[in-house]
Amino acid sequence: MRILFLGDIVGHPGKQMVEAWMPKLFDHYQPDLVIANAENIAPNGRGITSRLAEALFDVQVDILTMGNHVWDQKDSLSYIDSDRRIVRPANYPAGTPGQPYTLCKVGKEQAAIINVLGRSFMGDYDDPFRTMDRVLDEIGTQAKYIFVDVHAEATSEKYALGNYLAGRVSAVVGTHTHVQTADDRILPGGTAYLTDAGMCGPYDSIIGFTKEPVIQKFLTQMPTRFEVAQGAGQLHGVVIDLNDAGKAVQMERISITPDRPFKV
Amino acid sequence: MRILFLGDIVGHPGKQMVEAWMPKLFDHYQPDLVIANAENIAPNGRGITSRLAEALFDVQVDILTMGNHVWDQKDSLSYIDSDRRIVRPANYPAGTPGQPYTLCKVGKEQAAIINVLGRSFMGDYDDPFRTMDRVLDEIGTQAKYIFVDVHAEATSEKYALGNYLAGRVSAVVGTHTHVQTADDRILPGGTAYLTDAGMCGPYDSIIGFTKEPVIQKFLTQMPTRFEVAQGAGQLHGVVIDLNDAGKAVQMERISITPDRPFKV
Amino acid sequence: MRILFLGDIVGHPGKQMVEAWMPKLFDHYQPDLVIANAENIAPNGRGITSRLAEALFDVQVDILTMGNHVWDQKDSLSYIDSDRRIVRPANYPAGTPGQPYTLCKVGKEQAAIINVLGRSFMGDYDDPFRTMDRVLDEIGTQAKYIFVDVHAEATSEKYALGNYLAGRVSAVVGTHTHVQTADDRILPGGTAYLTDAGMCGPYDSIIGFTKEPVIQKFLTQMPTRFEVAQGAGQLHGVVIDLNDAGKAVQMERISITPDRPFKV
Amino acid sequence: MRILFLGDIVGHPGKQMVEAWMPKLFDHYQPDLVIANAENIAPNGRGITSRLAEALFDVQVDILTMGNHVWDQKDSLSYIDSDRRIVRPANYPAGTPGQPYTLCKVGKEQAAIINVLGRSFMGDYDDPFRTMDRVLDEIGTQAKYIFVDVHAEATSEKYALGNYLAGRVSAVVGTHTHVQTADDRILPGGTAYLTDAGMCGPYDSIIGFTKEPVIQKFLTQMPTRFEVAQGAGQLHGVVIDLNDAGKAVQMERISITPDRPFKV
Ligand SMILES: [Fe+2]
Ligand SMILES: [Fe+2]
Ligand SMILES: [Fe+2]
Ligand SMILES: [Fe+2]
Ligand SMILES: [Fe+2]
Ligand SMILES: [Fe+2]
Ligand SMILES: [Fe+2]
Ligand SMILES: [Fe+2]
Repeated sequence: MRILFLGDIVGHPGKQMVEAWMPKLFDHYQPDLVIANAENIAPNGRGITSRLAEALFDVQVDILTMGNHVWDQKDSLSYIDSDRRIVRPANYPAGTPGQPYTLCKVGKEQAAIINVLGRSFMGDYDDPFRTMDRVLDEIGTQAKYIFVDVHAEATSEKYALGNYLAGRVSAVVGTHTHVQTADDRILPGGTAYLTDAGMCGPYDSIIGFTKEPVIQKFLTQMPTRFEVAQGAGQLHGVVIDLNDAGKAVQMERISITPDRPFKV
Repeated sequence: MRILFLGDIVGHPGKQMVEAWMPKLFDHYQPDLVIANAENIAPNGRGITSRLAEALFDVQVDILTMGNHVWDQKDSLSYIDSDRRIVRPANYPAGTPGQPYTLCKVGKEQAAIINVLGRSFMGDYDDPFRTMDRVLDEIGTQAKYIFVDVHAEATSEKYALGNYLAGRVSAVVGTHTHVQTADDRILPGGTAYLTDAGMCGPYDSIIGFTKEPVIQKFLTQMPTRFEVAQGAGQLHGVVIDLNDAGKAVQMERISITPDRPFKV
Repeated sequence: MRILFLGDIVGHPGKQMVEAWMPKLFDHYQPDLVIANAENIAPNGRGITSRLAEALFDVQVDILTMGNHVWDQKDSLSYIDSDRRIVRPANYPAGTPGQPYTLCKVGKEQAAIINVLGRSFMGDYDDPFRTMDRVLDEIGTQAKYIFVDVHAEATSEKYALGNYLAGRVSAVVGTHTHVQTADDRILPGGTAYLTDAGMCGPYDSIIGFTKEPVIQKFLTQMPTRFEVAQGAGQLHGVVIDLNDAGKAVQMERISITPDRPFKV
Repeated sequence: MRILFLGDIVGHPGKQMVEAWMPKLFDHYQPDLVIANAENIAPNGRGITSRLAEALFDVQVDILTMGNHVWDQKDSLSYIDSDRRIVRPANYPAGTPGQPYTLCKVGKEQAAIINVLGRSFMGDYDDPFRTMDRVLDEIGTQAKYIFVDVHAEATSEKYALGNYLAGRVSAVVGTHTHVQTADDRILPGGTAYLTDAGMCGPYDSIIGFTKEPVIQKFLTQMPTRFEVAQGAGQLHGVVIDLNDAGKAVQMERISITPDRPFKV
């Protein structure tokens, strides 16, 4: 079974890159399950709308994961709550709208997709480690394939969670930094691990945003309005192959930028 | 001119990897200048000692950069202050011991090596942007090649500094996260950029440290003693080619792990 | 019923102040229950030892609360776990040693004493709000008087928790900043509230520590060894009167310093 | 010479309290210089407008200090820059609009008023310690009386700065936490010190804001809109007496709340 995962989709340029490349990626990789992190797809780079989610489903993305920006578009709250193809971070407190994980048919088996937030340099969420224990317990034997999107800042926390889950899930892939890491590896027990999948969005930017205001913010420490950059796009993600036991056997990073054309 | 840069060397396993691989890397890449980040080379992964610095110089590393752990071995303070081959972060306050940058002969030209700390999620250092302005001003025309090691956590701050310096320095390479990123690119103006070079140290670890205590720290929130992990090593770095004008023309990431043997 | 609470006792000077003043405070206030925060009583200002706890019990302190430094003296872990007169923060994860709250006979009734950590600018503890819900649920009708020591940094979090608990507990008193606040008030529902009780320790100090190294730390950003200051002491706390329904009816701050002698 | 200082004025209720009480405070204390922190006076509790500043000047406030919210009302930027009665934090980077300190005639002498931001748990500002050195150097002998508003979160940083400036300025008074501390003291060298002056604003609130949304924010970790609370007000500040050498000789905290009427 093959999973294609795309990292944080940022704004309109991110959506365009995904729409433009999904057919080619589909052809080339023939994935059985496509997951994308869509926490930044709104035009201002913060949150999601139902219309944008539908656009991703239209190009054969199966499941959307989120992150710390999940609630930034207030009017999407009910949508996120109602659509089982959208997974919000599992470690928001009990009673939070939305699904902390979702199950999805893949052939004759089921896959579980989980999204969880780190706390280091992030926010006061519930413990991601114990949350994962609880969610995996709840999923039990319902899913043969388990994919975890760890939306976190600190490499130590991501590695700790990856190793904590090694042998218990099929894959642990990080998001949030918007920069792909080069440390893809299969951890003991057959768990594919990658600290960050990277982003889909504008290339000439600072993690998706127009460069000048971000630099000004650092220089002036004054309130600054950030906007999603325009221009040529980049797309980042990872392809993971699982065997019939749900163990990862192979993984390959995808990085498409104006400097690094897709090699078919 | 070719620069070989090695990311954070962690403990004895990191030192061993560098000692074992430097001859082969030297043969293969034939660098004109070798720089390594040595902020974690002490046995406990924090700071440096004169003996360990000498060991690196013995295997043809020319210049050592540091980071937030620069002062962790108290007795090395005078050593760091006296040896011009060691560069401490430039944005410690005025009056701090050590060199905020160093000049180094490369053929008939000079190279300047600068180390600077980020502030996001880090500490209360001086502004790295204005510090770079000041240091570059001081270097002036003394150096044709300028290499900057940005020791920082946040991808946004690293990209902002990279773009702020684009066209003004030869290379901006990040350290500190201990995980190599896959976003090597030549920014406009001929500045090689990489968000993080990654680490040199034990492979079966959490960013260099024994896994179990780090996981326990996240699980218990109690004081925990971390130690550098043992076992097979990994080595990460980057090779950057500069033209006679000091502009970057090519770069190649190095990643050697038990899973990813060095392909000569 | 009258409660006397003393804020963070810092080092030997803090212990001495409490030992010297407890007889006079006892005479003057005639409290029915004496509680003290002892997270800083160890000689270096971090944690507690069994010997020091016993010294406080010897001068008629009934119950000790703790804080983020609770585990800093490693060898006291089993002691904290075994002595029911010591309360550790309730929002450490499940499975943590020590009592998250304790019950204590006061006349014919019982008092519950709870210690809880804030998260803002602190650490990745469990949610203090839901933890309080759970603990109060567990205590149920066992205690008529309920005292909560909120060990936290941010005034917003302390006020939020105070108001969240207003009418459900007898008193919410803050600790951790080592500076007494002047905002004592009875919140609606009969809950005594004070953002911070202040510290017991050396007066000529920076929140209990020798001034020069703390200033040097801010000036140099280098690792610095802090030590508890010596010299004349200060003592801070609060006296709270509860009626037979466990509601706060009156409160009075105590502040004894060399500049502000105790007025009997 | 007598200074009256009022802490963070929050929203319309804060403005109303100041307008209502200034005549009585003036009568009672007969201050020679009135300073108020106005960083929260805008209707939403963030920043200032020219109209609101004028309203304060109309009731005999002489000088306004600010804080981290200084730039939150974008259209007030030019106003802050042009009016010498408004002091912005001195440790914004070089080139920032506004005055880092101001001089003000008091009888035949001059007073200097300085506003400086802490960095602990705050933001990436310039070093407040060295900034103070530089500003004091610049002021030189122009001012006999020097008042410093330290807008900071951490008690350790405020005490460190207070002690760093002891004997060099007339007074160091903190703001930002919106809760008055009870630790007023004259430091060696004749420097009046108070960790926080407290706020002027609505009493039934969480540091000025409607309680329910703030509690919800802590409970849900979701984006929440805060608004300044309404209802009965509180006013906090401090009165400091300086001798002819500019040394503090006496200080008195002011705390007026519905529970604590002003005792004339
Ligand atoms: Fe994110
Ligand atoms: Fe993101
Ligand atoms: Fe580092
Ligand atoms: Fe490091
Ligand atoms: Fe504490
Ligand atoms: Fe404390
Ligand atoms: Fe503030
Ligand atoms: Fe404020």
